[in-house]
Amino acid sequence: MKYIFLFAIIFYSIHMKAQNSNELMLDWRVGHMASIDARPAQYFDSKVPGAVQDDYMRGNQLEDFSVGTNVDAYQKLEDDYWCYRTVFSKPELGANQNLVFHSKGIDYEFDILINGKKIFHQEGMFTPVRLVLNPAELKESNVLEVIIYPIPKAEGQPFGRRQAIMAVKPPVNYLWDWHPRLVTVGIWDETGISIEEKAQILETDFTYQLNGDLTAADIDFSFQTSPEAKGASFEWTLANEQGTTVLEQSGTLTNTQQQLDLSISNPQLWWTYDHGTPYRYTFRLTIKDSKGNTLDEYAQKVGFRKVELVMNEGAWIEPIDFPKSRSVAPFTIKLNNRLVFSKGSNWVHPEVFYGNITKARYEEQLLLVKELNMNMLRIWGGGITNKEAFHELCDALGIMVWQEFPLACNPYPNDPHYLEILEQEAVSIIKRVRQHPSLAIWSGGNELFNNWSKMTEQSYPLRLLNSLCYRIDPHTPYINTSPIFGVGHGHYLFYDWNDQIDVFQRMNRAKNTAYTEFGMPSLAPVSILEEIIPIDELFPVKPTPAWEVHGAFKAWQETSWAELRTIEKYFGKAETLEELVWQSQTLQSIGYKAIFEEGRRQKPYCSMVLNWCLNEPWPTAANNSIIAYPNLKKPAFDAVKASLRPILASAKFRRFDYQAGQQLFFDLWLLNDRYKKVEPGKMNVILTLDGKQQKIGSWDFNEVKENQNLEGPMIRYNIPAGTPSQLAKISIEVEGNEALNSTYFVMIQSVVKAPIDVNRLNF
Amino acid sequence: MKYIFLFAIIFYSIHMKAQNSNELMLDWRVGHMASIDARPAQYFDSKVPGAVQDDYMRGNQLEDFSVGTNVDAYQKLEDDYWCYRTVFSKPELGANQNLVFHSKGIDYEFDILINGKKIFHQEGMFTPVRLVLNPAELKESNVLEVIIYPIPKAEGQPFGRRQAIMAVKPPVNYLWDWHPRLVTVGIWDETGISIEEKAQILETDFTYQLNGDLTAADIDFSFQTSPEAKGASFEWTLANEQGTTVLEQSGTLTNTQQQLDLSISNPQLWWTYDHGTPYRYTFRLTIKDSKGNTLDEYAQKVGFRKVELVMNEGAWIEPIDFPKSRSVAPFTIKLNNRLVFSKGSNWVHPEVFYGNITKARYEEQLLLVKELNMNMLRIWGGGITNKEAFHELCDALGIMVWQEFPLACNPYPNDPHYLEILEQEAVSIIKRVRQHPSLAIWSGGNELFNNWSKMTEQSYPLRLLNSLCYRIDPHTPYINTSPIFGVGHGHYLFYDWNDQIDVFQRMNRAKNTAYTEFGMPSLAPVSILEEIIPIDELFPVKPTPAWEVHGAFKAWQETSWAELRTIEKYFGKAETLEELVWQSQTLQSIGYKAIFEEGRRQKPYCSMVLNWCLNEPWPTAANNSIIAYPNLKKPAFDAVKASLRPILASAKFRRFDYQAGQQLFFDLWLLNDRYKKVEPGKMNVILTLDGKQQKIGSWDFNEVKENQNLEGPMIRYNIPAGTPSQLAKISIEVEGNEALNSTYFVMIQSVVKAPIDVNRLNF
Repeated sequence: MKYIFLFAIIFYSIHMKAQNSNELMLDWRVGHMASIDARPAQYFDSKVPGAVQDDYMRGNQLEDFSVGTNVDAYQKLEDDYWCYRTVFSKPELGANQNLVFHSKGIDYEFDILINGKKIFHQEGMFTPVRLVLNPAELKESNVLEVIIYPIPKAEGQPFGRRQAIMAVKPPVNYLWDWHPRLVTVGIWDETGISIEEKAQILETDFTYQLNGDLTAADIDFSFQTSPEAKGASFEWTLANEQGTTVLEQSGTLTNTQQQLDLSISNPQLWWTYDHGTPYRYTFRLTIKDSKGNTLDEYAQKVGFRKVELVMNEGAWIEPIDFPKSRSVAPFTIKLNNRLVFSKGSNWVHPEVFYGNITKARYEEQLLLVKELNMNMLRIWGGGITNKEAFHELCDALGIMVWQEFPLACNPYPNDPHYLEILEQEAVSIIKRVRQHPSLAIWSGGNELFNNWSKMTEQSYPLRLLNSLCYRIDPHTPYINTSPIFGVGHGHYLFYDWNDQIDVFQRMNRAKNTAYTEFGMPSLAPVSILEEIIPIDELFPVKPTPAWEVHGAFKAWQETSWAELRTIEKYFGKAETLEELVWQSQTLQSIGYKAIFEEGRRQKPYCSMVLNWCLNEPWPTAANNSIIAYPNLKKPAFDAVKASLRPILASAKFRRFDYQAGQQLFFDLWLLNDRYKKVEPGKMNVILTLDGKQQKIGSWDFNEVKENQNLEGPMIRYNIPAGTPSQLAKISIEVEGNEALNSTYFVMIQSVVKAPIDVNRLNF
Repeated sequence: MKYIFLFAIIFYSIHMKAQNSNELMLDWRVGHMASIDARPAQYFDSKVPGAVQDDYMRGNQLEDFSVGTNVDAYQKLEDDYWCYRTVFSKPELGANQNLVFHSKGIDYEFDILINGKKIFHQEGMFTPVRLVLNPAELKESNVLEVIIYPIPKAEGQPFGRRQAIMAVKPPVNYLWDWHPRLVTVGIWDETGISIEEKAQILETDFTYQLNGDLTAADIDFSFQTSPEAKGASFEWTLANEQGTTVLEQSGTLTNTQQQLDLSISNPQLWWTYDHGTPYRYTFRLTIKDSKGNTLDEYAQKVGFRKVELVMNEGAWIEPIDFPKSRSVAPFTIKLNNRLVFSKGSNWVHPEVFYGNITKARYEEQLLLVKELNMNMLRIWGGGITNKEAFHELCDALGIMVWQEFPLACNPYPNDPHYLEILEQEAVSIIKRVRQHPSLAIWSGGNELFNNWSKMTEQSYPLRLLNSLCYRIDPHTPYINTSPIFGVGHGHYLFYDWNDQIDVFQRMNRAKNTAYTEFGMPSLAPVSILEEIIPIDELFPVKPTPAWEVHGAFKAWQETSWAELRTIEKYFGKAETLEELVWQSQTLQSIGYKAIFEEGRRQKPYCSMVLNWCLNEPWPTAANNSIIAYPNLKKPAFDAVKASLRPILASAKFRRFDYQAGQQLFFDLWLLNDRYKKVEPGKMNVILTLDGKQQKIGSWDFNEVKENQNLEGPMIRYNIPAGTPSQLAKISIEVEGNEALNSTYFVMIQSVVKAPIDVNRLNF
């Protein structure tokens, strides 16, 4: 049974280029100007798609914006208009052909002019544009201009992210702790002019609903064709991965709008790679004229999955006391009727100039995500909604996508104009992204229900987004924001000087349904620091403008993200930059391992762990990222990868540092996120102290059930008095199954500090 | 500026009778039958509007259903069909006249037949019906039948409220702790056949938006007329309370749909009676033919108010610890830009046969609400959405209405059919009730986010309701349910034997943004008990079927709502029914006073106190109500009324009972919900012990600011050893302002119990 909406929904078209179009070759140039009617004194070569500031940098042979404090130079351009310009000859058009301007995204407010005449205006970077050019108004040689308005800045707001509250645009570019002030604008996705057959497919829409036991799906396929296609025949097929057609339907186009109702039995389901195969089918729609010639054709990969957010196990019994409030919000992913523990990270766009992101750029990062044993990415609301290639890759790789709308850490208003643009943009985003089986969660945005944003469930933007998602994509869960009730964000420090507790102590107190943001900062690799920080400021590390603009100081708090005091607390004063970086990255590795594994041990009450953050859009000097720009693995990469193996031996510590003479103690666990049993076995605990190994405990563990963890004994070891300061290594070795082995480090601190090794640790 | 929805909204019509219609006089008869095609063996006189079971009771001269266990007899009728039948002569119709069947509500699923031919079918009691009868199909004498289907029962659900999960119908009638199993069906609101002019006004829609400082409102007035009215002229006026026209517009009906955009400067605002005047304007729409004859006219009272739910003061700083979850949901009413502390109760329909409720019945109860110093009623989701008269009275009296949809304590499903009916019914409800300025909150239903309901923000019914409210009435806050995060429900006991704490101890631990349900049970007045309980079961009170069906035992817990053990704990064994009732009602009075005043003392973090419940739909034997059926004030009425005075002296106790020899201590407060200052003054504390008065303290208080409370000193008194058991009275007397005086009672318990007076206490 399908749920019929009684409301009429006017869908915004997904304007797609006809498959048999011919693209004109265009040379784009761009320049800036003080007013909308002026024209640039100078044009530069422009990369389309891209960003005007990037073109400007190259056109002026400016130094890399990511070095030193170069980025500050771009602020003076913020209130300028920009003019993209290209000249094209009027092509020969057949009687059945149109000349079409098409763009998947122009950022942010813009006019389009042909030969000086304005033919289009839009505010909004996520709604595609398709304009059939009037041949009568074309000359032999034509000038196409795209005028980009100055970056949107909400009136009366202070410099920074608050200026983004009236725009449906990534607020992060307005300045964030790890992102410079550089508000990119321009043509940011595929754009051009094409010769297209008039008889064409304009839009397709593939939706489905799986039945309760997933043995069948009802498919609604609707499509829209141009009036010129009327009378043509159509063929629609659905083929499996082997290319075999499993469903087909054909007919005649009596109308520009067609609706096919089909059903498929026992469809192969789309799974995350760690739970199965991210299976995809391909639908193909062909329209043909009466002679059987193909007029147009469109094919797309689709997948069948059911995804829900269900209550975390053990959470319905809360609250217990009167007066009784509500139970927490559900936060366990149920994929195809299976409870899935979600492991992943917060993804930020990997380029400040997000228009430059290519499929290859997405792919190299997403392969790292899979290597990290992650099955989910949260696409944080401070950034963009990604281009199609990103979602296609997540579909193909089997990585779930939590997609936020571009709202973050701000009080987005109940303003009519803002709401109108938000509705337009959200509809474009939802209609596009819902086609992807990897989509798992819609979210209104980041940290909107906290006191730095002060939005609530009464805020119109969130009521609107909830309403739109329900109307257009009811089968994907929607949350207003993260964190919601029960979910935790933070902490972002190894040691908190206010509370005087370390990350282990904090996590032992925490009881959340999901940890959807937690950070652990480190300095960047030395190779990056040497590129971005002037050589005379490199060491000793201190708050200079270059370090600050790259997030090492005054980024979130005064001391973040370098956190020198914490490093020194454990390691004493470093004598070289290399040593300091090693110490910082070691704490990051240990801290991330602590949180990821504790979150997993709290399963099933906890069902998700996502660190802040995976990557970064430019080389920072210090950040919570585990991949430094562009793709450099920090040591934490290996630590996180180890912590996220589907099955592993794990140790639960109560704190990081111990004095010689104290007792070191921790619990053994076996963590299993797989839907298969782990056979009984034995794990041994080896302590390496003063370079000497000793076995300090073992555990004969029973069979571990599918998707369950098993808690084992506590291991205790009395650290001999007089043991010198060092990182002691604890190896947990599973007999006959070394893939499950884990390695931990704790700090022994004697009164007399001793130097600590700077070799890379293996987790 | 007005917010333009980009979605097309198809409104359901509010079918209204033309003002100049002639109503046929109809005699209704009703009977029951085993199948839809059968007809009753016997018809009874029917009261329309009413309920078939009520007709059946009168038709069979059955004993009152509210006495003893008589109500059980109605269960055997649940699976029957019912046939309403009336015969009418075909009236003379002019060429410009229609004969119209109209109904504001038929409960629940029904067919309408004329002369044996089915002309209409509907599921849903809140969507009105308007049918133009085809004159060609009418005979000289005609039979109109309304066939009522058996009560809806969800398949496979156990006896009780779970059977209501597939119906948009009050679940309370399926059995609740204070409501018998009696699922009423039938014609429940105004219904008849009328002769109407064809040229008529079919629908009007008055919406407005106040500007930020409330100095102007944009008005959207739209209306629909019949095609026959085309070409007529129209006049629209808005008049103030003095009858002076303040706005007018006129024109010609070129279309069946008209839209007027107007604005009003400095409108008088609608306020609750305790904050101002519930000011109302009247709009009048008249359509006239070319000769100036009035074709139709429609007038309605409207009001201008801005209502929001904003964050409770002090709540944005929470949560403090990492991992950080969200802040609580906002729950402070802001009316016309003023923060209002909401005081009130949960209203339940005052008749089991809710079709019998008249305007007079509403009015007598609402006058009691005002007498209680309450400014808000929560219309709980277990019951009905009220008839128009209720909302008109709340508008007129200045009482805010929190309106829930008819969902309560159940897991309402994502079922397509249920969602379709829910959408139809919700649209009808929203479009009607949003016209009333007294409407303050929409809510999805009662306790849906708790483990006895297991719904969440992912549930389609709630996403649908949020979406519909946002689309149709964005200017009224919407919450998914109560309690939401931060809000508390309960407790419902004076003394909790599990936690071993009394109501004072519990409330001193509580920290909620709002207490939107809390109960305090008592036995019914003796006069009621004597009517409903067989005389031989009256005393001693024990769990017999008659006591049980009336909620005294096994209602919520084994011991509720008589709570004999608690009464005995404080008072010892009562020797008469009168004594027991006095003891029970005394605890209710003291308990309610404790919670209402503690909620008020917690202002501004707390901003709302609503007890469970105000009234009851039939005479219960024991209940949390403060008005016994039909309108009997329990002693708690006076206690609550005293606690809800806008300004009062208040004492904060830590517990109810003290041993002789212990110290009695409490804090003095002055509570002020008025937007005016309280002048400095002095209050004296008089203790009455063993019949002797003594002053035990005083407080010279400073000026109390508008809408603020002032905390005073702690008063201490050492209860002399050997003081006999008694209720000690503490009077707080404000010099020169005795309207602020308050009275409290605490229990002194010596080892040897002494009899306690059974005279009514004055609070």
